[in-house]
Amino acid sequence: MKKLMWAAAAVAGLSTALPAAAQFAKPEDAIKYRRAVMTVLGNHFGRVGAMAQGKAPYDPRLAAENADIAMSMAKLPFIAFVEGTDKGETRAKPEIWAEGEKFKASAQKMQEELTKLSAATKTGNLENIKAAFGPTGQSCKGCHDKYRKDEAK
Amino acid sequence: MKKLMWAAAAVAGLSTALPAAAQFAKPEDAIKYRRAVMTVLGNHFGRVGAMAQGKAPYDPRLAAENADIAMSMAKLPFIAFVEGTDKGETRAKPEIWAEGEKFKASAQKMQEELTKLSAATKTGNLENIKAAFGPTGQSCKGCHDKYRKDEAK
Repeated sequence: MKKLMWAAAAVAGLSTALPAAAQFAKPEDAIKYRRAVMTVLGNHFGRVGAMAQGKAPYDPRLAAENADIAMSMAKLPFIAFVEGTDKGETRAKPEIWAEGEKFKASAQKMQEELTKLSAATKTGNLENIKAAFGPTGQSCKGCHDKYRKDEAK
Repeated sequence: MKKLMWAAAAVAGLSTALPAAAQFAKPEDAIKYRRAVMTVLGNHFGRVGAMAQGKAPYDPRLAAENADIAMSMAKLPFIAFVEGTDKGETRAKPEIWAEGEKFKASAQKMQEELTKLSAATKTGNLENIKAAFGPTGQSCKGCHDKYRKDEAK
């Protein structure tokens, strides 16, 4: 019933060795979980972004800490895109499941860009962070534009 | 106005070097963030718990992965207990701010127990995980019983 869309090997992240049914008791649990992950991810990515955009003072240690948290969070949500969870308190479009491979590619792109952003923060050079921030933001936006509704329900 | 309750050194976690106002634009952002962190934390802690309680098959790698995520998440929420955020969509009791030191101690206890649980998962021995799971759950419950309302608002 609630099969996962893809295997663990496909999108880097938490193991999907267990059946999805064992991972989330109810569809709404999966939705709540992935929304929570996105909230935390967005918060920490935004903290790096504020520095990249000159809206917050550049602090090399904070930039690296926040990028690392964002990168870690980026591995988590995809176990929760269980089939049938395009209903309820979610902005997920049915295209996520209809275009599984494309969605997966978008997810991978985002993870790769965040990995590059994290590496950039480790250089301690704000210019490198600025250069990596744009493509990372684009990878978020690209997926949201295609696969996220304007409002839940 | 929105001062943090404690310094970075007090509760292990993300740096609080920046003023809280720079960390969350609005009180409701702080509330949404910490609730999201707790959702993710609870999910991964629950996955370890299911194994400890015999409700899910024991998988050493999954136990360790999930315990590590829970431990990482446990470092995050405390930057978001900004003063004045006991109102709105939150179950946080005013006692969090009135008894700052006690709340801080509860948070530290939870972090310590999760660190022990993570170490237990690394032994690959379910008995060790079972032994660590109880005290960890108690540390969650202890804080929730004292500092969390039954319902938001």
